[in-house]
Amino acid sequence: MSATLLDALRAAVGAAQVLTEGDLSAYELDWRKRWRGKALAVVRPGSTDEVAQVVRACAAAGASIVAQGGNTGLVGGGVPDDSGRQVLLSLSRMNRVRAIDSANATITLEAGCVLKAAQDAAADQDLLFPLSLAAEGSCTIGGNLATNAGGTQVLRFGNARDLCLGLEVVTAQGDVWNGLTGLRKDNTGYDLRDLMIGSEGTLGIITAATMKLHPLPAAQLTAFAACGNLTACVHLLELARRHLGAALTGFEVMGSAALELVARHFPQLPRPLPGAAWTVLLECADAHSESQARERVESLLQTAIEHGHVADAVLAESVAQARALWHVRESIPLAQSLEGPNIKHDIALPVSAIASFVRRTDATLQTAFPGSRVINFGHLGDGNLHYNLQPAPGVQAQAFLDQHEAAVNRIVYDAVALFDGSISAEHGIGALKRDELHERKSPVAMAMMKAIKQALDPLGTLNPGRVL
Amino acid sequence: MSATLLDALRAAVGAAQVLTEGDLSAYELDWRKRWRGKALAVVRPGSTDEVAQVVRACAAAGASIVAQGGNTGLVGGGVPDDSGRQVLLSLSRMNRVRAIDSANATITLEAGCVLKAAQDAAADQDLLFPLSLAAEGSCTIGGNLATNAGGTQVLRFGNARDLCLGLEVVTAQGDVWNGLTGLRKDNTGYDLRDLMIGSEGTLGIITAATMKLHPLPAAQLTAFAACGNLTACVHLLELARRHLGAALTGFEVMGSAALELVARHFPQLPRPLPGAAWTVLLECADAHSESQARERVESLLQTAIEHGHVADAVLAESVAQARALWHVRESIPLAQSLEGPNIKHDIALPVSAIASFVRRTDATLQTAFPGSRVINFGHLGDGNLHYNLQPAPGVQAQAFLDQHEAAVNRIVYDAVALFDGSISAEHGIGALKRDELHERKSPVAMAMMKAIKQALDPLGTLNPGRVL
Repeated sequence: MSATLLDALRAAVGAAQVLTEGDLSAYELDWRKRWRGKALAVVRPGSTDEVAQVVRACAAAGASIVAQGGNTGLVGGGVPDDSGRQVLLSLSRMNRVRAIDSANATITLEAGCVLKAAQDAAADQDLLFPLSLAAEGSCTIGGNLATNAGGTQVLRFGNARDLCLGLEVVTAQGDVWNGLTGLRKDNTGYDLRDLMIGSEGTLGIITAATMKLHPLPAAQLTAFAACGNLTACVHLLELARRHLGAALTGFEVMGSAALELVARHFPQLPRPLPGAAWTVLLECADAHSESQARERVESLLQTAIEHGHVADAVLAESVAQARALWHVRESIPLAQSLEGPNIKHDIALPVSAIASFVRRTDATLQTAFPGSRVINFGHLGDGNLHYNLQPAPGVQAQAFLDQHEAAVNRIVYDAVALFDGSISAEHGIGALKRDELHERKSPVAMAMMKAIKQALDPLGTLNPGRVL
Repeated sequence: MSATLLDALRAAVGAAQVLTEGDLSAYELDWRKRWRGKALAVVRPGSTDEVAQVVRACAAAGASIVAQGGNTGLVGGGVPDDSGRQVLLSLSRMNRVRAIDSANATITLEAGCVLKAAQDAAADQDLLFPLSLAAEGSCTIGGNLATNAGGTQVLRFGNARDLCLGLEVVTAQGDVWNGLTGLRKDNTGYDLRDLMIGSEGTLGIITAATMKLHPLPAAQLTAFAACGNLTACVHLLELARRHLGAALTGFEVMGSAALELVARHFPQLPRPLPGAAWTVLLECADAHSESQARERVESLLQTAIEHGHVADAVLAESVAQARALWHVRESIPLAQSLEGPNIKHDIALPVSAIASFVRRTDATLQTAFPGSRVINFGHLGDGNLHYNLQPAPGVQAQAFLDQHEAAVNRIVYDAVALFDGSISAEHGIGALKRDELHERKSPVAMAMMKAIKQALDPLGTLNPGRVL
């Protein structure tokens, strides 16, 4: 059986693109090094038609397929299991920019196109591809869409879903659905595009996408603001939305414990507001001029100080200073890694509930695990926190995780449920949160999801055991 | 069987809310007076639980259900067929605003809430509910979502889909899915929300929704610009996107034939740029001040005039003048009605293809039907044209329609297909375009849609014969 399938795969994509030997850990080991699988073969098709042939061959042989882009996922959704029977389908060779239509403000990309390459292709035409996230140098458009990626520009431009107009998808039957429309409006039937987006390779394999582009802003301004508590941060967000409207493109929040880790592990980085309990990174874009943007941000911060929401603030005076401020924000995850093993969460809450959630959950965790440190930071404008737990200083971290990770997750996710939040804001479900999803999602929603999976992939060819 | 079902319906919602006698044309006759059906009963539940009971009763009796909001649909999707066996489920009594969360910038509404009431409820909190369309005084949120309504603010705020965060839905089995989340990010499983949105009551019955709110802009500015041809309008759009960024909230286009009809039937309305081949209505919102908005729009128009895209322009000097300009735009459909029967289209095209599409299709129609008048207007910023045909003056219009409507549609929709457009941009499929959809949609997409319908509504309880 396997031999026949391997022959069919070699016939489909060429023998050189069917990898079965040597070190395949670039494909079989996930980025966080939490899941190491073993594939029957790594298959690297070069065209949509080859992807379709691979799917048909696998379906006929009863083998299942894990699609993979840049292998930067955080929930184990893109690596094979350890059965040695799954086919790892890498989209990495399908990395072309197929077309840019400036007048329509769209770009059509193959799934394996690296996010940074898409940004660059747009910038070459004086246009903005707004999706931006930490892994942008290696993650791919197909993976971004399969997981509905978020990032730092969601407040203004939305998730990957909101940027996508059309898809090309290979179905579980190995048919090609050409839904590559560049239309802003199209009400002709069910929304198959959004059903595929975020389905993590379980309903179809995204092979290309047409995405929206935006004008490049004339100017961008970045500021740090010191707030005494999270409620003040939320007030500042409300005020910023009113003062800046759609010019508000970023609103990140960082707790003092997170910035202390950055200061410890990256002492060379600036620390503009060292005493702040909470620091907000605020970004404003302007279509017109930097002076108008500066005037607006200064007026906003002045008002926020007068209202007592903000104690102090700094505005970047140059692009280099703005980059340095962003660099502080982006160094938190790495500082956490350098500090040692920790427990990560990617939660979303109604913005109006965030302060209460944090007060309550901080206290519960402190009672259960005295001295443990909540490293709390994230995209406050979207209600998305990376609410992570670092064991108390001096505690053996790996042992702490082995013993307490499940209990910590239970405390956090129970509180998320209490405040009508989400246990996965932008990372997806994959393998990591599958059991949690089954336990916590509404049974009516789970029944609909299973019915849809059964309808579109009755043989279970596509990424079985993930999400559902 | 019917008697038993009627008893069950009366038990579910109370006898007074099960209408079987008298003039039911408010429910059975569509707004365009093209479809007159006959329902077994009009049922008016007052709560989500009552909706669920009605669905279970109908499913048990083998009866099908047509859900209806404000009955303002344009494609015959919300009225019963003439069998006398369908249950018309009116959501009109479920019209409450359940909650407004200012800090989270969300509003939760029942399906039968009239769009204008939702706008007013948001404005009372100094917030903007941006969905806006001609029928807003009577259409409802449930219908807006079931058809993924568009309107005049899509360029900036998106369709109904883009404004929705969460849904409450009664499934074909009569279960209640509570997906009323106010989260900006939630990647926990398949996107059931977007699958329901735009499915025109065939996959579930939307009973409530949580929608995004935006800050009210400090100032709005409206302008008319005269362009020599459609290509110039597209250039102006590109320039406006660059100059105004997200402050560009409206970009409507009107052909001279459309404005001539308005001038004929509404001579009291202003006609600011009488000689223009094409007139653009441009709207700019500003979070800050009217003077900055005016400065930006003036600078944009100056640049457009220098580049030769615009021949002349007028800016509204007051709110009253701005309303008058919008009123001209919004009077086109009524002027068409007063002129006599005509053939309507609601098409979308890539913005970059619009000028070519119009040149070619105008010529084809003129050759086939000499003297007929294309009344062309719409939301150019979204690539959405209402590309309508009025028979030649003096021709008996109803006879022309009876004889030629199918041929006209074929010419228009063939050209739409040639330019990768859509035959339904914002009105949906309903009964009107069902055959057209089956003929023109990709067979792979149709197969997926049918599989999903079968999976979620295996008995065909929900709005059978519509869309699919």
